[in-house]
Amino acid sequence: MKIIIYPGSFDPVTNGHIDIIIRAARLCDKLIVAVANNESKKAVFSLEERVELLKRSLAGMENVEVTSFTGLLSEFVKKNKASAIIKGLRTVSDYEYELQMALINKSLSPEVETLFLVADIKYSFLSSSIVRELAKLGGNIEGLVPDCIKETVIKKLGNN
Amino acid sequence: MKIIIYPGSFDPVTNGHIDIIIRAARLCDKLIVAVANNESKKAVFSLEERVELLKRSLAGMENVEVTSFTGLLSEFVKKNKASAIIKGLRTVSDYEYELQMALINKSLSPEVETLFLVADIKYSFLSSSIVRELAKLGGNIEGLVPDCIKETVIKKLGNN
Amino acid sequence: MKIIIYPGSFDPVTNGHIDIIIRAARLCDKLIVAVANNESKKAVFSLEERVELLKRSLAGMENVEVTSFTGLLSEFVKKNKASAIIKGLRTVSDYEYELQMALINKSLSPEVETLFLVADIKYSFLSSSIVRELAKLGGNIEGLVPDCIKETVIKKLGNN
Amino acid sequence: MKIIIYPGSFDPVTNGHIDIIIRAARLCDKLIVAVANNESKKAVFSLEERVELLKRSLAGMENVEVTSFTGLLSEFVKKNKASAIIKGLRTVSDYEYELQMALINKSLSPEVETLFLVADIKYSFLSSSIVRELAKLGGNIEGLVPDCIKETVIKKLGNN
Amino acid sequence: MKIIIYPGSFDPVTNGHIDIIIRAARLCDKLIVAVANNESKKAVFSLEERVELLKRSLAGMENVEVTSFTGLLSEFVKKNKASAIIKGLRTVSDYEYELQMALINKSLSPEVETLFLVADIKYSFLSSSIVRELAKLGGNIEGLVPDCIKETVIKKLGNN
Amino acid sequence: MKIIIYPGSFDPVTNGHIDIIIRAARLCDKLIVAVANNESKKAVFSLEERVELLKRSLAGMENVEVTSFTGLLSEFVKKNKASAIIKGLRTVSDYEYELQMALINKSLSPEVETLFLVADIKYSFLSSSIVRELAKLGGNIEGLVPDCIKETVIKKLGNN
Repeated sequence: MKIIIYPGSFDPVTNGHIDIIIRAARLCDKLIVAVANNESKKAVFSLEERVELLKRSLAGMENVEVTSFTGLLSEFVKKNKASAIIKGLRTVSDYEYELQMALINKSLSPEVETLFLVADIKYSFLSSSIVRELAKLGGNIEGLVPDCIKETVIKKLGNN
Repeated sequence: MKIIIYPGSFDPVTNGHIDIIIRAARLCDKLIVAVANNESKKAVFSLEERVELLKRSLAGMENVEVTSFTGLLSEFVKKNKASAIIKGLRTVSDYEYELQMALINKSLSPEVETLFLVADIKYSFLSSSIVRELAKLGGNIEGLVPDCIKETVIKKLGNN
Repeated sequence: MKIIIYPGSFDPVTNGHIDIIIRAARLCDKLIVAVANNESKKAVFSLEERVELLKRSLAGMENVEVTSFTGLLSEFVKKNKASAIIKGLRTVSDYEYELQMALINKSLSPEVETLFLVADIKYSFLSSSIVRELAKLGGNIEGLVPDCIKETVIKKLGNN
Repeated sequence: MKIIIYPGSFDPVTNGHIDIIIRAARLCDKLIVAVANNESKKAVFSLEERVELLKRSLAGMENVEVTSFTGLLSEFVKKNKASAIIKGLRTVSDYEYELQMALINKSLSPEVETLFLVADIKYSFLSSSIVRELAKLGGNIEGLVPDCIKETVIKKLGNN
Repeated sequence: MKIIIYPGSFDPVTNGHIDIIIRAARLCDKLIVAVANNESKKAVFSLEERVELLKRSLAGMENVEVTSFTGLLSEFVKKNKASAIIKGLRTVSDYEYELQMALINKSLSPEVETLFLVADIKYSFLSSSIVRELAKLGGNIEGLVPDCIKETVIKKLGNN
Repeated sequence: MKIIIYPGSFDPVTNGHIDIIIRAARLCDKLIVAVANNESKKAVFSLEERVELLKRSLAGMENVEVTSFTGLLSEFVKKNKASAIIKGLRTVSDYEYELQMALINKSLSPEVETLFLVADIKYSFLSSSIVRELAKLGGNIEGLVPDCIKETVIKKLGNN
C-alpha cells in the first residue's frame, strides 16, 4: 500500500490545498494530511482548529486522513511507512523554499522522496496568509476557502 | 479624467518612489499617492509622518495628491474611480510579490488594473528598509531620499 | 491624446495578446499594435499574414490600430508621438527579458516609458510558440487563439 | 496498476536521468521512459540511438520500459493509461519551462498529472547538452553518463 | 598584502561557511571573518559565542582572523584596508539579497568590491537557520556544522 | 603571483566587460582576458577581430593580457597556473547559466575557483548581443562599447 504525506501549516486550509489533496489522493492508496505543530512559527488558528477545519473540508474523502505531527517531518514520514511527501508548487511562489526543504529532507532521510504537483493555475496567487489578510480587512474570501469553513474563518479573523 | 493610484508603505519615501511618481504623473490626469495604514505591518514612521514626508517631497507637483487609506486597496481604488494601480518594479526585487498582489487585486475586482513601471536602474537596489538600516548605522543617505526630508529621517532613525 | 504602442512578433496572435490589447485599449485614447519586422528572428507567418490575423481578430475595436515597423522600437514610438510602450508579463515567463528590453529602450530614449500589465492568469502559460508547436502536432488550439483565425493557423502549421 | 511516463529527449541519457528513473520506478508499478521524436528540435543522437542507449543503461530494471513517441505527450499518456508524467527539477535549472509544460499538458488533458522530483544535488548542474559539449571538447564525462554508454558517447561526439 | 573580509551572522557557523572560508583564504594574504553585531537582527547565539565557535572551528588556519564589527560593513572594510568583501552564493538561495547588498556597499564606497564564490553543491541547502531548526527538533546535525562545535550547538538549541 | 582568467565570447567587447576587467585587474597580479574559440557557438566577429578589439580597448592596462583559447576552459586555467576564473553577474541576467558553468568547472577541476563580480548597475542591461542588435538597426551604441572601437563595430554590423 502506497502512503503519501501532505504536510503543511494549513492556517487555515485554502481551496489551493484542497485541489492538491484531491489530486494527490488519486495517486496513492492513502494520503495523510499532516498539520505541523511548529512552535517557532506562530499560527493564528490553534493546532486543533486547523485539524478540525481540514476534517470538515475533507469529509467524505475516503482515502484521506487528517492528523498533526510534532518534530521532524522526515521522522513522521518514516514512522508512517510513507513512500513520499507531496507538496504543491505555485507559479507565483516559494519554489526555492520548497526545493530547499526537499533537499534537507532527502539529506536527513535519503529514502524519503518529495513529489511536487503544480497548483491549479486559478489558485496560483492563493495562500493561507492571503486569506487571513483578506478576512481581516473585510475582503471577500468566497471561492478561496471551502464553503463549509468560510464563516468560521471570517468569525475568527474579521474585526466585526 | 484618468486617475491612477500609487499605493505603498512609504516608510519613509525614497528617491526611488519619487522617480516612479514623476513618471506615473505624466501618464494620467491625477495621481493619488496612497499611504497604507496597515496595522499588521508595523511601520517605523507614523501614518501622519509618512504622509507629511511625501507632501513635503512632492510640493509643487500639480496633478499629484497624497492621502492614506485603511482596508482593502481594491476598495480604495473603486471609491476613487481610479482606472489603475501603478507600482514600480526593481531589477533587484520583489517581483513575485508584486505579481501576486496584482493577481489578488484583479481577482477581487476584475476591473482594477495594475500597471508596472521599471524602476530607474540607479535606484534598483533602493528600498525604504535600506534607508532605515543605513540611517540607523550612521551611513550616508544623501541621494537616497529627497534632500528636503533627509534631516528628518536621520533625526528619527539615527542613534545620535 | 494619449497613444500607447503594443509591440510584438505576434507569430501568430494568441488570446493572451488579445486580453492585453483589450485591457490596454481602456487605458489610452489610441492603442497601436505594432508587428515587428525583425529579419534576424525568423517568423513562421509572414509580416503580412501576422498583420492580417491581428486585424481580423481585432475587427470592431475602435481605438485599436494594427501596423508593422522596421528598425528600432524606440524610434517608432517617438515617430508616433506615443507616451508609452505596453507589454504583458506572464507569471510563468520571460520577465528578465522584458525588463532588459525596457531598460534598453529607456537608455536609448529616456522619455519613452514601458508599462507592464500582468497577463490574465488563465493565459500565463500561453505563447505563440506553444500555439505553433501544438498546431504542428495536431493538438487542440481552441481557446488559445481567436476563433476567427483558428482554421488559418491550423492550415498553415498542421501537417495534414 | 499505476503507470507513470518519464518523457524527454535523452540526447544522450545522463546519470541525472538515471537517478530520476530509479527513484520514479519505486513510486509506481510500471515506468515508461519515453523518448520524444521531435522533428523541430534537432537531436544529435538519432531516435534509435537514444532508445538503445537508454535500454543498455537500464538493463535489469524490472518495471521500467523504454520506448519512443511522436506527437503530443498528453495523447501518449492517455493511450498508455498512465496516471502521471514525471519530470526532474534541478536546483540550477529550467524550472519555469517545466512548469509551463505541466500547465499546457494539464490544459490539454486535465486528467493528466505532472509530478516533479528534485534532482539529486550532485547532478544539479548536469544536462545532456553539457555532456555533449564536454565530450566534443575532449573533457572527462566519467560519472556524468552510465559507464556502459561512455565509450559510445565519446566515439559519436569526440573529434578524435 | 591583499586582505579580504568575509562578513556574516554566523548564528552558528556551518560547514557551508567553513568551505567558503577555506577557499577564500587561498585567494588572499589575510581573510578576516567578521561577525556582524546587528541589533535589529536578533541572533540566537550571543556575539561572543558566535566569535568563539568560529575561532574553535578555524583553529590552525594561518591566514584567517576572526573578529566582530558594529555599524556599516563598508566602513569596517575601509578601516581594515581590505580590497574586497567575499560572500558565498548557494544554488538554492538568497541571490537577489546578496546582489542588493553588493550594490548598496558599492554605492556607499565605490572602491569596495564584493566577490562571490559559489557554495559547494553539497551545502547548497544549508544555512544557519536550518541548523537551528534541526537542532531544536532533535534532528541530526552531523556533517552540517564542524564536529568540534556540534555538542555546543545541540546543548544551546536542543530541548533536552 | 596570482593570475586570474576572464573568459568570454566578447562578440564584441562592451563597456560592461571593460568595467569588469578594470575591477578584476585590481584584485590580482595578472589578468588574462581569454576569448573562447567555440565552434558550436557562431560568433559574428572572427576570433582575430574579437582579440584585436579587446587589445585596442585595453591598450595601456599593464597587468592585463589578451589571448584566445580552444577546448576546455578548465584546462586553459590549469595550463596558465591561474588561481581563479572571474565572471560578471548582471542584475538582469543569466545568473543560473553562470552558476551552472561554475559548478561544471569545479566538478572537472576542483582546484579551479570561479569568482563573480556584480556588474556596474549602469551596465546591467548591456550585452554583446544587445550591441549587435542595436548596431544592425542603426541605433546609437555610444557609451555601450569603448569609443576606440565604435566605428569598427558599426562598419561591421550596420547595414549602411
